[in-house]
Amino acid sequence: MRIAILTFEGYNELDSLIAFGILNRIQKPDWKVTLASPTVQVTSMNGVTLHAQASIEEACEADVVLIGSGSKTRDVVNDATLMARLKLDPKRQLIGAQCSGTLVLAKRGLLGSIPACTDLTTKPWVQEAGVDVLNQAFYAQGNIATAGGCLASQYLAFWVIARTIGLDTAKEALHYVAPVGEKEVYVTRALENIVPYLN
Amino acid sequence: MRIAILTFEGYNELDSLIAFGILNRIQKPDWKVTLASPTVQVTSMNGVTLHAQASIEEACEADVVLIGSGSKTRDVVNDATLMARLKLDPKRQLIGAQCSGTLVLAKRGLLGSIPACTDLTTKPWVQEAGVDVLNQAFYAQGNIATAGGCLASQYLAFWVIARTIGLDTAKEALHYVAPVGEKEVYVTRALENIVPYLN
Repeated sequence: MRIAILTFEGYNELDSLIAFGILNRIQKPDWKVTLASPTVQVTSMNGVTLHAQASIEEACEADVVLIGSGSKTRDVVNDATLMARLKLDPKRQLIGAQCSGTLVLAKRGLLGSIPACTDLTTKPWVQEAGVDVLNQAFYAQGNIATAGGCLASQYLAFWVIARTIGLDTAKEALHYVAPVGEKEVYVTRALENIVPYLN
Repeated sequence: MRIAILTFEGYNELDSLIAFGILNRIQKPDWKVTLASPTVQVTSMNGVTLHAQASIEEACEADVVLIGSGSKTRDVVNDATLMARLKLDPKRQLIGAQCSGTLVLAKRGLLGSIPACTDLTTKPWVQEAGVDVLNQAFYAQGNIATAGGCLASQYLAFWVIARTIGLDTAKEALHYVAPVGEKEVYVTRALENIVPYLN
């Protein structure tokens, strides 16, 4: 299972790396999670420069693609060349978007009539793109999921594991990273958020 | 206010970057948050290479130092040269530790008789260092705080903002990053975790 998290210039650290960390709890030889970027290095909205682990083209070949968020997502969606490189297809891939990543999904025409989650800042731009924005942390329909609010990226990761391996493994992964003393609370809330969209 | 997050080779992405992201919600000219490392680049436990923004020596001069976690913390505490470079002092600094970062605090002799939080994997090593480990997400006494479970790093960030600026600003920062539809739940739980230790 190849999973790519699209991480653009100006990326939000929480939105790419929480999902990345949780997904990497899975220790299977065929399980590979990468941060994928248009350039070999990207710098976050708060100045953290990291090395991409995959290209956009490699990400487009992955089984699962999560679209991270950031302070420059409007530049991404206005970059026709970059947008054309995002050859994503929910018929062959699970696709998730976090916060302003939802704007990329919308502008790439992948949401159609599917409502979506995003953060409060991005909400008007997603609405302007013709998508209904839900007042909740997570929503999925078929192979497309969206999440709103940085810490909701735990739900995207949970959904990916639940969809590709199973619910018990998703629960274990979240249980491990949840705060001590609050692990059951976190797992229960994740189940409430995601199980309704698994069928 | 200079805040440094110690980020070692093999760092856990969640444990350094959740606190980093939340602390960077504060937009004040004198507020500077950096990832500080012993080398100019460090690679995470899952292969993410990032560029340090500060040195260990610069971190030791900061007003607040958070010690991140990772897969190689036992190498850190066994590296006498590196440990000697960690000139931290709770009399002049707020000091927080996340998960295996608590082992660094313990081995550096900064905890004394203060009990501490850590993750379940690190727990026996911290106990072996003579520290009582609490079955909870967050604990603070005076200028030293510890947190256990990756996602508990939100509480370290909350504590730092509450101690240096105030509770209302801490609530705003966490509210922004919390999942849509769960923002009040997250803020309430942070208050429950941290307020008992603010006096």
